[in-house]
Amino acid sequence: MNPRVVGIPGSLIRQIAAKRRPDSIDLGLGEPTLRPTQRYLDAAMGDVRANGLKYSVNAGMLDLRIAIAEHYGYPDLSRPDNVCVTTGSQEAMYVVIKTLLDPATDELLVVEPAFPSYVKMAVLEGIAVRQVAMRAEDGFAFDTERILAAIGPQTRAIVICSPCNPTGRVLRASEALALVTALKKRPGEPIWLIHDEIYREQMFVDDSSELARIYPQTIVTNSLSKSNALTGLRLGWFIAPASLVEQAVKMHGWLVSCADTFGQYVARHIFADPDGIHEHVEWYTEQRDAVVAALREAGLPFAPVDGSFYACVRLPEGANSLHTAIELADDMNVIAIPGSAFGESIEGWLRLSWVADIATVREGIKRIAEYCRG
Amino acid sequence: MNPRVVGIPGSLIRQIAAKRRPDSIDLGLGEPTLRPTQRYLDAAMGDVRANGLKYSVNAGMLDLRIAIAEHYGYPDLSRPDNVCVTTGSQEAMYVVIKTLLDPATDELLVVEPAFPSYVKMAVLEGIAVRQVAMRAEDGFAFDTERILAAIGPQTRAIVICSPCNPTGRVLRASEALALVTALKKRPGEPIWLIHDEIYREQMFVDDSSELARIYPQTIVTNSLSKSNALTGLRLGWFIAPASLVEQAVKMHGWLVSCADTFGQYVARHIFADPDGIHEHVEWYTEQRDAVVAALREAGLPFAPVDGSFYACVRLPEGANSLHTAIELADDMNVIAIPGSAFGESIEGWLRLSWVADIATVREGIKRIAEYCRG
Repeated sequence: MNPRVVGIPGSLIRQIAAKRRPDSIDLGLGEPTLRPTQRYLDAAMGDVRANGLKYSVNAGMLDLRIAIAEHYGYPDLSRPDNVCVTTGSQEAMYVVIKTLLDPATDELLVVEPAFPSYVKMAVLEGIAVRQVAMRAEDGFAFDTERILAAIGPQTRAIVICSPCNPTGRVLRASEALALVTALKKRPGEPIWLIHDEIYREQMFVDDSSELARIYPQTIVTNSLSKSNALTGLRLGWFIAPASLVEQAVKMHGWLVSCADTFGQYVARHIFADPDGIHEHVEWYTEQRDAVVAALREAGLPFAPVDGSFYACVRLPEGANSLHTAIELADDMNVIAIPGSAFGESIEGWLRLSWVADIATVREGIKRIAEYCRG
Repeated sequence: MNPRVVGIPGSLIRQIAAKRRPDSIDLGLGEPTLRPTQRYLDAAMGDVRANGLKYSVNAGMLDLRIAIAEHYGYPDLSRPDNVCVTTGSQEAMYVVIKTLLDPATDELLVVEPAFPSYVKMAVLEGIAVRQVAMRAEDGFAFDTERILAAIGPQTRAIVICSPCNPTGRVLRASEALALVTALKKRPGEPIWLIHDEIYREQMFVDDSSELARIYPQTIVTNSLSKSNALTGLRLGWFIAPASLVEQAVKMHGWLVSCADTFGQYVARHIFADPDGIHEHVEWYTEQRDAVVAALREAGLPFAPVDGSFYACVRLPEGANSLHTAIELADDMNVIAIPGSAFGESIEGWLRLSWVADIATVREGIKRIAEYCRG
């Protein structure tokens, strides 16, 4: 067998999430508990009745690519040949990393704490990875100086998730500007920025940045999973310069042929509705305020929740996050993800997903506070 | 960029298929023109209404994996941990090849003529490929002696598509038995067989073999695409020894997280119906007889159509298949795929996909015969 595959662990997040019992307080898996809007699904089924369920072209339906490109309207990335529709943003990220980086020479710089898949994908491809950790003392705020200082001679791309899973922090406009200004000044081949925007519709600060608006070598990945409670639809995309998309589409084609046509129909109806992709924004904004209030009330220290649907809670000095998560599941019937799943820099913290109804989330926070008081 | 991705061509099949005009006779892309059964889709939508569209576990829904494992009932591969549900059989094949073979030491043996993706996937992974061509003089019949003679010291797996795309030939029981008998006698690590069974429900001979019944180191890939006219659903699977599935599921998880949940619901309803996966068998059987009669009537030489929904037609001596396919598209308004898309051994032939209504297929055959007469 392939030693890289044998050597890679499965998802720790999913292992902890699997400890969930029917009556557990589930603050684990990053999956909305809202239901998808039936209207979009029914309209897509109408398309299936009319057209069957045929392959699309490898890159995805042309009218969907037009709709996505125009919706985001990133400068120089607003044409259909800037878009490839994928099997969720997971495949988008995989195809982008695999296409962009030459394992023989290139290195990926991952801004941590981070969703574990970026590093795992690079390792599976034999691509060298360098990690740069944002600091717990700063509440994991994005820190451009630290990112720039971590760039090595082989670094060809930097992956940044903002709003961030797990930290909930958002890359502020001033930090983003400082980052791209410095990158533009560097001699030699430009370094690419991969911006994972999957929590774009869970943004609770005005001061943010879309890297694709200010830096031409940006690749954006996104999906319907979090914005529209459609995690199981596996419908995502990447947006990038056409020369990169042209290469990446080949990879995507040999990997999965094309994205699910039913999912593409659903996406077409969502993007045809001006509010489609934003439909749950209000719910998340209200929920976030209630969660922050509950965390304060419980006296739990937490990193600022700028975006995403997570809150990171600091455990008492010396606590091991995996041990804590297991004890919380076994003794308090609360599922939360250990910080260690997202990098060493966030060991000693827990990631709470706060998508359950607010009473459940409050009860979970209460039990965690109780546990922390010992 | 990754030179392996840059160096890989896109799909020649899709390039030729794209020459299709609205009034073309389309004998190109391998996609049923039958419509999927609405009942299964509606039942799946009922599941979505009840449960939303959530992630499944990485390997796929347990009850679906039970249903698939039991339906095929391959000896020692009939438990749910022998099954992983994937984004079509394309991703199944990719994950299997990537997991099974170590690029540093292992070689994949591809029995040709073959669907081009096996070789492309291996090349993208840096896995050495050896090809063994079945002979045009034999109508591309599977020839165990040739396959065995092609095994090299590094060969770790052999990929066989039966019923075969493009040739339409089926691996006969006697040839299969000879193959596995010889493989079992070999000293050292066993060689794996990867059996692509995607045309299993288009089988027109009684004398066939399922390798998973007679050889323990067999991996089967399949999907709903061809059996149920669901190419756009992207719902496939692989069936393999649990120790391999355990590793491959990790790869699958980091690549796409899980298969589409709507598609998994559809599959669950199809497998719950004893005739579900066989629903189109009769149509294909009748169509095949009509196509064979039309080819004979047109006086076109063709390889025996044992299975699949293709027929391979031999062009006049010296004709170039790509040139012919382009001329047929441009001058006769008929789309057919050049043999060269499937390996050098089938250069000088065309692959006809015969899934259109029979009048259209007949007209296409007539025009090709006319073209061949010059």
